[in-house]
Amino acid sequence: MAGQADIGVTGLAVMGRNLARNFARHGHTVALHNRTEARTQALMDAFGDEGNFVPTGSAESFVASLARPRRLIVMVKAGAPTDAVIDEFAPLLEPGDMIVDGGNAHFADTRRREAALRDRGLHFVGTGVSGGEEGALHGPSIMPGGSAEAYASLGPLLEDISAKVDAAPCCTHIGPDGAGHFVKMVHNGIEYADMQLIAEAYDLLRRALGMDPVRIAEVFRTWNQGRLESYLIEITAEVLGHTDAATGKPFIDVVLDQAEQKGTGRWTVQTALDLGVPVSGIAEAVFARSLSGHADLRDASQGLPGPSGRRLGGSAAESFTDDVEQALYASKIVAYAQGVHQIQAGSQEYGWGIDPGAVAKIWRGGCIIRARFLNRITETYSGPDQPVTLLTAPYFREALDAAQDAWRRVVSSAAELGLPAPGFSAALAYYDALRSPRLPAALIQGQRDFFGAHTYRRTDRDGAFHTLWGGDRTEHSA
Amino acid sequence: MAGQADIGVTGLAVMGRNLARNFARHGHTVALHNRTEARTQALMDAFGDEGNFVPTGSAESFVASLARPRRLIVMVKAGAPTDAVIDEFAPLLEPGDMIVDGGNAHFADTRRREAALRDRGLHFVGTGVSGGEEGALHGPSIMPGGSAEAYASLGPLLEDISAKVDAAPCCTHIGPDGAGHFVKMVHNGIEYADMQLIAEAYDLLRRALGMDPVRIAEVFRTWNQGRLESYLIEITAEVLGHTDAATGKPFIDVVLDQAEQKGTGRWTVQTALDLGVPVSGIAEAVFARSLSGHADLRDASQGLPGPSGRRLGGSAAESFTDDVEQALYASKIVAYAQGVHQIQAGSQEYGWGIDPGAVAKIWRGGCIIRARFLNRITETYSGPDQPVTLLTAPYFREALDAAQDAWRRVVSSAAELGLPAPGFSAALAYYDALRSPRLPAALIQGQRDFFGAHTYRRTDRDGAFHTLWGGDRTEHSA
Repeated sequence: MAGQADIGVTGLAVMGRNLARNFARHGHTVALHNRTEARTQALMDAFGDEGNFVPTGSAESFVASLARPRRLIVMVKAGAPTDAVIDEFAPLLEPGDMIVDGGNAHFADTRRREAALRDRGLHFVGTGVSGGEEGALHGPSIMPGGSAEAYASLGPLLEDISAKVDAAPCCTHIGPDGAGHFVKMVHNGIEYADMQLIAEAYDLLRRALGMDPVRIAEVFRTWNQGRLESYLIEITAEVLGHTDAATGKPFIDVVLDQAEQKGTGRWTVQTALDLGVPVSGIAEAVFARSLSGHADLRDASQGLPGPSGRRLGGSAAESFTDDVEQALYASKIVAYAQGVHQIQAGSQEYGWGIDPGAVAKIWRGGCIIRARFLNRITETYSGPDQPVTLLTAPYFREALDAAQDAWRRVVSSAAELGLPAPGFSAALAYYDALRSPRLPAALIQGQRDFFGAHTYRRTDRDGAFHTLWGGDRTEHSA
Repeated sequence: MAGQADIGVTGLAVMGRNLARNFARHGHTVALHNRTEARTQALMDAFGDEGNFVPTGSAESFVASLARPRRLIVMVKAGAPTDAVIDEFAPLLEPGDMIVDGGNAHFADTRRREAALRDRGLHFVGTGVSGGEEGALHGPSIMPGGSAEAYASLGPLLEDISAKVDAAPCCTHIGPDGAGHFVKMVHNGIEYADMQLIAEAYDLLRRALGMDPVRIAEVFRTWNQGRLESYLIEITAEVLGHTDAATGKPFIDVVLDQAEQKGTGRWTVQTALDLGVPVSGIAEAVFARSLSGHADLRDASQGLPGPSGRRLGGSAAESFTDDVEQALYASKIVAYAQGVHQIQAGSQEYGWGIDPGAVAKIWRGGCIIRARFLNRITETYSGPDQPVTLLTAPYFREALDAAQDAWRRVVSSAAELGLPAPGFSAALAYYDALRSPRLPAALIQGQRDFFGAHTYRRTDRDGAFHTLWGGDRTEHSA
């Protein structure tokens, strides 16, 4: 006996509840289930009139309420709770049914779960969902992995509830097994980098120019009218413009300056290291957050020598705001180039066949990093000549060309003034390293051969070579 | 029946062979074993007269040749081969015997193996060995983990064959279970950072000043007379001064500029991310190596706009060599501060009780990062007042004070000239971030509260707070 619900949601905390409401508001019949039934009832009490809900009180009745093939979305905490829910529901399902994990799972866990359920004839669709609570309710960016067969059944529902940009849904089939969660992870890594770059821009305007937060909010509002237009720039202006009611001070000055994190940024960097992809912009963002939280280390370091309180003056000060906009844009291009590189490397490693342009397209709406800018990435990867890196695509190359003098001035000024700009600096160093005809990596290979006989290659012929450094210094084929 | 050999070595590739010879040269009777017996015979043929060896042809005869408690050193490739050897030998051993893993194992594997063998009454001693082939033969730096009981039996032999500095052995008991391999991992991470910083110094002298490699070799030779005195600076001068016989060109110019790596640098960064320790200097070094190896990406990026070929002139050029020395020293202090922080965090996490001063002391000889500088770290942690970070210890604080203007000029010049200096820049940004009374992490917390209701803390009272950004913007306790 199968029921009539189009889709089911188990786990009705705020994300699950809002996704369920979003489905119902789009005319779908939504079965509801939660470990503690009170939450199901609370949803019905508050929002039951928004659409067709089928509240259920047990795993069995939940499964029985779903039309076949059953589409069951799990919205629980990533990790052991996800495995527990899978273990509970999988025995109740039949071949062709699908379990959708909409949590922030590590893609390696998703690969493991997908393989295990595939062996039992079930589909497992690890799905990135970005946009927070509001996105879940009003239209998130959705990044489903799993099989094409599962997407054929599930995709139309997900596309229905996703954000729309130019009438296109912010949801597409990313690729098999863990591809969706992988892309969501890199999305979050890019988000870390983007936020760090914005934070550096704010800090430089404040400390190099002495601007107050309200004035900087105006600057961000202006930037949001241009090529930097994005959700993060928009909310930055809101946060900086906000006044703390309790003290009358700028809100930003009463917030403890210790950034927290939930782990996806860290996973992005750890995975990039395994893939051999340099993601210095994302790494510096993760490190900046952890550094900020080491209160003891920071307390001990107060008073370390530096050019405290020095500010820019004269003509340098006049052009500095524009320079920072250029540096922010250029550094952001680098962060996205690094993220796209990681997605391509992951796709290659796991055979996912991910289209970076399609990914950028579904990030244009619903998610935290939504931005006008993403159209350019989609364009870059929609033509027949796909660049090896975003940096060399005509639009981005031109932007970098126009930005680079200002970018260099900003990094240089930050160093001279004693203001930390790890994200801007790392992005510029990455750019200049890629441009370099020769890198001092040759010296590192020479050192490695000297102390560990690790051998080196030559520029003029094939093979691996070792020099007898401790002997007569002749060269030998290895 | 137990034999008479003081110690046994299984796995007689170059590292194992040289360790075995080192023991024998110190008067110990060394049992030898290798999966293929020919290698055992080859050692006997070539070096059998160097001391008392007991060549054996089977696992059983190897174990039988050892005095009790048996001390058996495994020198095989890290990973599955190590497990295979453990599985082969553990059943032949008796309670109190010890297996020593001298390979570059991941400390998590060492923890797993130690726990498994402890359950069987056997000691497992994961041991870092640094110094390459030459170190193994003439005196390496040795970092053993495992139990204090195992060290009481094994330590004297390891101390015998270790390098000596001021008559002190470069070997000490690091701490329980995986502590030795953890410290060896961080040692290698620091080595990556140190090499990258040296590579940047070379690249800047070459490209900002137009110095040729032979002249730069002289600069490094001079630096090696001062506070930078170290093995890596010494061999850098040798590599840069070497001429390629085949072409007559500087050796450094015929080496392919794609640096390779074996994984311990990557592990260091991945582990630091798990521990929440910012190790940006090590991360940039790992990324620089992987970037250098992406030939396609680098090829595509040639010709990206930048100030190619620009050089320093005038008074800036005159002082630049000294400035680079200062920048190198200051950045190196930061890299070591980050590494020591990671060791302290690991020690805290796993309850190892590691003494950073004792670690620095055994790194003074035998290993790749041996340096005069390490005495200062040992001194720092030998007094009653241990600083929270190396940066604030009086000696290092003074050095940073003297260096920082030059350091800023170098980072600034690199940015202006279009030369990548990711290690110098990351180190300076870390330093300036720690010094900052306020960090823009407050903005990041504001953004996170705005888009995800992640809450923030306040500077003026305890608790977690959320502002109703989408509503009336009042603040509520979370």
